[in-house]
Amino acid sequence: MSETVKYLLDESRMPKHWYNLVADLPQPPPPVLHPGTLQPIGPDDLAPLFPMSLIMQEVSTEREIEIPEPVRSIYRQWRPSPLYRARRLEKALDTPARIYYKYEGVSPAGSHKPNTAVPQAFYNKEAGVKRIATETGAGQWGSSLAFAGALFDIEVEVFMVRVSYQQKPYRRALMESWGATCTPSPSERTAAGRSILAKRADHPGSLGIAISEAVEIAAQREDTKYALGSVLNHVLLHQTVVGLEALAQLEMADDYPDVVVGCTGGGSNFAGIAFPFLGEQLRGGRPVRVVAIEPAACPSLTRGRYAYDFGDTAHLTPLTKMHTLGSTFTPPGFHAGGLRYHGMAPLVSHVSQLGLIEARAYHQIGCFEAGVQFARVEGILPAPEANHAVRGAIDEALRCKQEGVSRAILLNLCGHGHFDMQAYMDYFAGKLSDQNYDEAELAMALSGLPSVAEA
Amino acid sequence: MSETVKYLLDESRMPKHWYNLVADLPQPPPPVLHPGTLQPIGPDDLAPLFPMSLIMQEVSTEREIEIPEPVRSIYRQWRPSPLYRARRLEKALDTPARIYYKYEGVSPAGSHKPNTAVPQAFYNKEAGVKRIATETGAGQWGSSLAFAGALFDIEVEVFMVRVSYQQKPYRRALMESWGATCTPSPSERTAAGRSILAKRADHPGSLGIAISEAVEIAAQREDTKYALGSVLNHVLLHQTVVGLEALAQLEMADDYPDVVVGCTGGGSNFAGIAFPFLGEQLRGGRPVRVVAIEPAACPSLTRGRYAYDFGDTAHLTPLTKMHTLGSTFTPPGFHAGGLRYHGMAPLVSHVSQLGLIEARAYHQIGCFEAGVQFARVEGILPAPEANHAVRGAIDEALRCKQEGVSRAILLNLCGHGHFDMQAYMDYFAGKLSDQNYDEAELAMALSGLPSVAEA
Repeated sequence: MSETVKYLLDESRMPKHWYNLVADLPQPPPPVLHPGTLQPIGPDDLAPLFPMSLIMQEVSTEREIEIPEPVRSIYRQWRPSPLYRARRLEKALDTPARIYYKYEGVSPAGSHKPNTAVPQAFYNKEAGVKRIATETGAGQWGSSLAFAGALFDIEVEVFMVRVSYQQKPYRRALMESWGATCTPSPSERTAAGRSILAKRADHPGSLGIAISEAVEIAAQREDTKYALGSVLNHVLLHQTVVGLEALAQLEMADDYPDVVVGCTGGGSNFAGIAFPFLGEQLRGGRPVRVVAIEPAACPSLTRGRYAYDFGDTAHLTPLTKMHTLGSTFTPPGFHAGGLRYHGMAPLVSHVSQLGLIEARAYHQIGCFEAGVQFARVEGILPAPEANHAVRGAIDEALRCKQEGVSRAILLNLCGHGHFDMQAYMDYFAGKLSDQNYDEAELAMALSGLPSVAEA
Repeated sequence: MSETVKYLLDESRMPKHWYNLVADLPQPPPPVLHPGTLQPIGPDDLAPLFPMSLIMQEVSTEREIEIPEPVRSIYRQWRPSPLYRARRLEKALDTPARIYYKYEGVSPAGSHKPNTAVPQAFYNKEAGVKRIATETGAGQWGSSLAFAGALFDIEVEVFMVRVSYQQKPYRRALMESWGATCTPSPSERTAAGRSILAKRADHPGSLGIAISEAVEIAAQREDTKYALGSVLNHVLLHQTVVGLEALAQLEMADDYPDVVVGCTGGGSNFAGIAFPFLGEQLRGGRPVRVVAIEPAACPSLTRGRYAYDFGDTAHLTPLTKMHTLGSTFTPPGFHAGGLRYHGMAPLVSHVSQLGLIEARAYHQIGCFEAGVQFARVEGILPAPEANHAVRGAIDEALRCKQEGVSRAILLNLCGHGHFDMQAYMDYFAGKLSDQNYDEAELAMALSGLPSVAEA
C-alpha cells in the first residue's frame, strides 16, 4: 500500500512573522473609499470598528509583520499544521503528479479560521475591547471567533444568517459551548435588521445583512468592536502563516509547487496558502501557477465585475474595489456556505487583475465526488468548501497524467467536514443539484453598484 | 495569559511496539471459557471470527508486540498525538495540580478508536479477509473501522444500534463517506435480529444485540470476519500506543503522573493510557493512582458483579470473566453512547480485582459542566465520553487545591465532541437529567448470569 507522508515542522520553525504581499506587488491595490466623500479613507475612519493595531495592519506596506508571542503561544496548540504528500490519492488517480495538501482541520474549530480569530481577539483585548460583534454564514467563522474570544475572555456576539441558524443548530451549539451568543439575522436588534424584517418578516437572511447588523452593533458602543473572518487585508495577512509553513515543509520534502490550488469565498484561505508563493515569484524566485476555485453558483472572480462596491447589504461599510456580483446578489442554495459571498477580497481581486492568478468556477456535485474520493484514500473528510480545492487539484493531477508530466500540486485542505454531514447525506441521497445563479438576478445586482463603481 | 504547553514527540520516537500488561501481572487473568463445554477455549475456537494473528495477540504473554510497519505508516498521519499541559485549566481552577491531557481527537475519525481499527484491518487484509462485520453504538467505533477498511480496501458492514441509527444520522453518513454499509440493529438480516424483532417489531436495539448480529454474519462466511472496538485483550493492547507516547512526552516535560484518569465503557481508551504506567509500577517503577470513571447509569466496575458472562445478548460469544451488569441489562438513555455496555474489559476487570485501579461512577450533567469548562479554557470540545475523564481530572485537581499539594494528573481526552452537538444542545437547554439505572432491572439481569458465573 502506498504511504501518505507527513511533513511536520518543528515548533521552533513556526513562522515568527506574517507575510504581507502588498510589499512585493508591482502596483499597490486601489484605495478604500469613504462612501460619503468618495475620498480614500484614513485609519481614523475605521477606528469605531477595529482596534488601531489591526487598522495599521490593514494599510501596512511592510513585508513582514511580527506575530505577537501570545498569539504564537495559542497557535502552538495545533500549529505548525501538517503537510501531507497524498501518495494514496496519486495512486488512485494513477497520475505522475506529486500532490501535497496542507491540512488546517487540526485546529480546535476544525478550519483555518482560528489563524485570524486568535490575533483579532488578541489585538482587541490589548485595546481594552470587551465585546466583539461579527457575522457568520455556515458558522465556521463564528465558531472560530467564539473559540478565540473564550481564550481571551472577550464576549462574542455572532449574527448568524437565519437560514443557517435554522439548518445548522450544531454550529450554533458549538459557538455556545465556547460561550458566544448567537442571534439569527435579520434580527430586531438593529435598525438594519428591523428594516429588512419590516419588508419581509420571514427573510432568510444573507451574509451581507448579517455584516450590516454586526457593524451597526459595533459602531454603537465604545467597548464593542467588529471583526470580519475574510476579505480584509489583515485577515489575509494572518492566514499567510499557512503558506509560510507550507514553504518550509516543501523544502523538507525537497520539492516546490508548480501549481497552488485553493477555494475562494471571501478569499482568505486561498490567500493564506498562495501569497507566500506569489511573493517568492515576485521577488525573482520560481514562478508558480496559482488557481482559485470558486463555486459556479456564486462566481465573483469569474463572472463578477471588478468595481467599487459595498461589503454589506445596508451599505454601512466603506467602498472597496473588488470582483463583485453586487451587494444585493443572493446566490442559489448550495452546500459550501463559506463560499457564499457577493464579493472577493480586494487583494485577491487585485492580484487577479494583475494576471498573477487564474480562477475557475465549479459546480458542487463534482466537488462532493472529489471529496468522497479523497476521504476514501486519504482518510480525511473535507468540508464542502475544501472539496472545491480537492476537485481543482484532482483535475490538475489528471491533466498531468494526460500530458505525461509530473508536476507538484499543493492544495489547501482548509477544514474538515464534521459539521457538514447533512450535505454529505444529501449528496449520497442524490438530493444535490448543480444550480446556476439567476442571470437576471446578477444583472439586477450589478446594476445597483454605486456610481463610483468603475473609478 | 497562561499558556497551554504542547509536548510533541518526534515521529522517530513513535512506539515500535505495543505493551502487553499481562506479561507483568502478578497473576494471569482467568481463562476464557467455551459456553458449551465450560472449558478454556483455544485459538482454534476463535478462528471463525478473527484472523490468527489477532488471536495470538489475544492470548499472548509477551511484554512487547511489534507494531507492523504498514500500521505505523498509517498511524503517522496523526500520531504521535499531542500531550498538553492544561495551564489555562489549572489557572481557572486555581489549583497547584499539574494537569496533562493526551489528545486522541486528532485522528481522522476524531477518537482513539483508529488506534485499533487500523491494525485490525491490516491483520485481516493480511489473512485475505474481504469483509469485516462489526457493531457500533454511538458510531465512534463503526466510523473508525470504516476509515481503516477504506485504507485497506476491505468491505466494512456495521450493525448500528437502531436508536443511534435514527438519532445519529451524521455518524452513519460518516461511515458511508468512507464506503462502509450501515444496517440498523436488530435487523432482518440475521437469526438473532429476526428473533428479537419477532417479539418486538420496534425494538430500539442494544450493543449486545448488534454484537450478536455481527458475530452471526462473520461466522457464516469464510471471507468475512468479526471485529470488536473494545473489551478484548488485543484491542486494549493496540491502545497502549497512547500511554507509551504519554510516558515519553511526560519525560520531555520532566514530569511523571501521580494520578492517571480515563473514562471506561468497554475499557479500551482507559487501558490504553493506564496500562503502560501500571507496567512501570509492576516492574518496580514509580507507583501511580489509576482512576477509572464510568457513567453512574451503566456502572459495571462499581456496581457490576465480577463473574463469567456473555459479551452479547444472543449468547453467541465465549464466556469471559468480567465486571458485568448482566448481558440483558439495558441502561437508561444518556449521552455518552460509547460507555453504554453491560460489561467491562476482562483485563481491566482483572486489574481492578488485583487492587491496581480505582473506579468512580459519575452522573452526566456534572460531566457536561466539566466539558464546557474545559472547552472554554483549553479550546477543545470533548466528546461526552471524554467529559467523564475531564470531570475526574478536575475533581482530582480540586482535591489538590483543598489539600494544598501539587500532583501531576494525566487524563486521556479520547475524542472530540463534533459529532455530539445534539448532546450539548440538550445540556444547554436544560433537557438532560441524571438518570439512575433501574435496580430491579439490574437484579433481573444479574439473576440471568450463566450458572458458571462465579467459577
